[in-house]
Amino acid sequence: MRPLISAEIIAIGTEMLTPFRIDTNSLFLTRRLNDIGIDVLRKSVVGDRMDDLVETIANACFRADVVAITGGLGPTADDLTREAVATALNIRLKEDSEILDGLRRRFAKRSAGPMPDNNRRQAQVPEGAAVLPNPNGSAPGLWIERGDKVLVLLPGPPREMEPMFEAHVGPRLAKRTGARRVARRVIKMAGQAESRIDEIAAPIYGPFAHGAVPIETTILAHPGQVELHLSAIGDDAAAMATALDAAVASLTSAIGESIFSLDGRTIEVVVGDALKSRGLSIGLAESCTGGLVAARLTEVPGSSAYVRGGVVAYSNDVKVAALGVSAAVLAEHGAVSEEVASAMAEGVRRAVGSDIGVAVTGIAGPDGGTEAKPVGTVWFAIAGPGDHRETLKRVVPGDRQLIRAWAVMVALDLVRRALR
Amino acid sequence: MRPLISAEIIAIGTEMLTPFRIDTNSLFLTRRLNDIGIDVLRKSVVGDRMDDLVETIANACFRADVVAITGGLGPTADDLTREAVATALNIRLKEDSEILDGLRRRFAKRSAGPMPDNNRRQAQVPEGAAVLPNPNGSAPGLWIERGDKVLVLLPGPPREMEPMFEAHVGPRLAKRTGARRVARRVIKMAGQAESRIDEIAAPIYGPFAHGAVPIETTILAHPGQVELHLSAIGDDAAAMATALDAAVASLTSAIGESIFSLDGRTIEVVVGDALKSRGLSIGLAESCTGGLVAARLTEVPGSSAYVRGGVVAYSNDVKVAALGVSAAVLAEHGAVSEEVASAMAEGVRRAVGSDIGVAVTGIAGPDGGTEAKPVGTVWFAIAGPGDHRETLKRVVPGDRQLIRAWAVMVALDLVRRALR
Repeated sequence: MRPLISAEIIAIGTEMLTPFRIDTNSLFLTRRLNDIGIDVLRKSVVGDRMDDLVETIANACFRADVVAITGGLGPTADDLTREAVATALNIRLKEDSEILDGLRRRFAKRSAGPMPDNNRRQAQVPEGAAVLPNPNGSAPGLWIERGDKVLVLLPGPPREMEPMFEAHVGPRLAKRTGARRVARRVIKMAGQAESRIDEIAAPIYGPFAHGAVPIETTILAHPGQVELHLSAIGDDAAAMATALDAAVASLTSAIGESIFSLDGRTIEVVVGDALKSRGLSIGLAESCTGGLVAARLTEVPGSSAYVRGGVVAYSNDVKVAALGVSAAVLAEHGAVSEEVASAMAEGVRRAVGSDIGVAVTGIAGPDGGTEAKPVGTVWFAIAGPGDHRETLKRVVPGDRQLIRAWAVMVALDLVRRALR
Repeated sequence: MRPLISAEIIAIGTEMLTPFRIDTNSLFLTRRLNDIGIDVLRKSVVGDRMDDLVETIANACFRADVVAITGGLGPTADDLTREAVATALNIRLKEDSEILDGLRRRFAKRSAGPMPDNNRRQAQVPEGAAVLPNPNGSAPGLWIERGDKVLVLLPGPPREMEPMFEAHVGPRLAKRTGARRVARRVIKMAGQAESRIDEIAAPIYGPFAHGAVPIETTILAHPGQVELHLSAIGDDAAAMATALDAAVASLTSAIGESIFSLDGRTIEVVVGDALKSRGLSIGLAESCTGGLVAARLTEVPGSSAYVRGGVVAYSNDVKVAALGVSAAVLAEHGAVSEEVASAMAEGVRRAVGSDIGVAVTGIAGPDGGTEAKPVGTVWFAIAGPGDHRETLKRVVPGDRQLIRAWAVMVALDLVRRALR
């Protein structure tokens, strides 16, 4: 049989045609299909209308090897996916007694009374389809083969869809794609603008696309963080790994020290791991970031091992009272200054008794900017470990939210660099 | 001419068929189209392949009154939208001298050297199309009428697409939809589970769908926050407003005090406005939320008028040293207790000199839970304004991230209620 190489994804449900909801299942499905060498040609979102569904499904089957359909498998009259697939493929539906028993057991177990007749619809199965069990919900999935093509019907909720795909769909599809696989690498960088990274990286990664093992490169930007995603597709896993590793190595040596992760870790995990391995603790003194740096570090389970705490010093009084910043220094240099940042870092180190104190003070806007200190001006300081002292000024771009998000990344990167 | 009532949205670009990017323009477009009485029938994402594009565009024109296309208007060989539309509609492309002049001026102004020949593609216009100016980028939009149908070609970047739609597309479409409009209301609630709200609200909003002015209700849940979105569509604005206001009134009286906003404001804005209008300041003492409450309050521009600051007391030492919690109370009751929460709220009020002190201390997990205090147990306390004292225990659902997000909402809601 011809290997499967192309797919279309159809998300079914009128709620995804409102201003409130969007199909996000397709991101997961695209990644997993790509992983096993299948390209996604098209994605559609269709409402709960029979003629639209039948047309969309029939056309997708015509164009693609694999048609992955999510949603519309529930028990209500709106849930038309089973019927639409049967109509599009011109096959009959029949009641599956095993599914029916399962549904009845599910209702009995939850003492929800006798099963409503509606739910019987969920036991309707197109002839020849394989049933995919759903341990996380009532809607079973379906696997249907027609000639060279495969249709997969999956439930809409991600917490039902994803485990079902991992357990039953991915492995079955992988058997039909030969040895074609995707291999990936990701390079994460902090504190640099996307344009700056691309200026350095594009001349290097450009030629990768035309190498013996072609490598595709995607650049993704978040505030204060840039990621380079490299991927190769093919059936020679060893050759792809060698090519990707060489590509990562040449990008790494050109980009240098702003790279904080080659293994997928977030910067808060990288910083946390460095603190743990050196047995050091940290305290945060935040003004314009308002607690975001501490919040990010404490997102990591187990971070209480190294985060002692922090002071959100939003007003100058708090900088004086809780961090011991001198009122004279504040008056002379202003709250957004190297001197105040340094004093805040020393102050929080004392106040929470940590090995390292980190301070952020800046102008997040929209008001408060001056010609000398425009909105986006942020001073950072680190005190510790030991005698290490460093300050840094950045003027970061964007609106209030972006400036704060940028400042969080620069602050965490300052810690990472101090711990290298 | 028959009024426009249906639309399809097509997002063009191979990057949206990767695991990295998703089409979000369609949320904005759906809202704006709905606002003027146009329903969205289908959404598609198609790559930069000519035959796919032509087929998708031709089919959409067959089914819908309005076809809104985003992306593929750039200067590179990958940008095929103009050609695909001309092919699908069987009309010729011609070079528009005004666009060409505009592009040349744009290049001259940015001193980017002479315009590359590639960019000339952006001056190609299907015959009979109206050009929509793009003050935020080089790709002009296009408005094409064919019989009763309208095609709109918009640039992909949201910061170019949205202003163009607002200025040129929405108003033109609205002239062709008669008086049909959507009217909306939103009710926001804090600290309640979605299922609890729906239990109260569903029997009330269910019949709305079958009233003289049918009202559609959508329930949206975020951690610690539930929203009810009500909308009516029709051409009698006054009748819709009356029906929606009556619907909101009956839901409001049934749901009661967990409602924090009927005007779209977020809880951090509601709390900030209440503090400002009463001339009160606030300080935060956070353990498990790690600074998230302070960060949320300081997201609001101008929040320095009422946020004094806070202490992130992640370790017990910091609770003692920076907040004056008694070591004996900590030892006797544990960090997650009513007594410690109260002492933290009093302590931060003193430490930052605020009118109100708020404390959060809980077990965010995944470790640290016990039978008596399972993961998700969170104690809250508020001290002030004046003699006001209150404590609250909640066991909130979910993983570490959800527990923290829930706790932020409950803490902010505690402040809101204290200021009523």
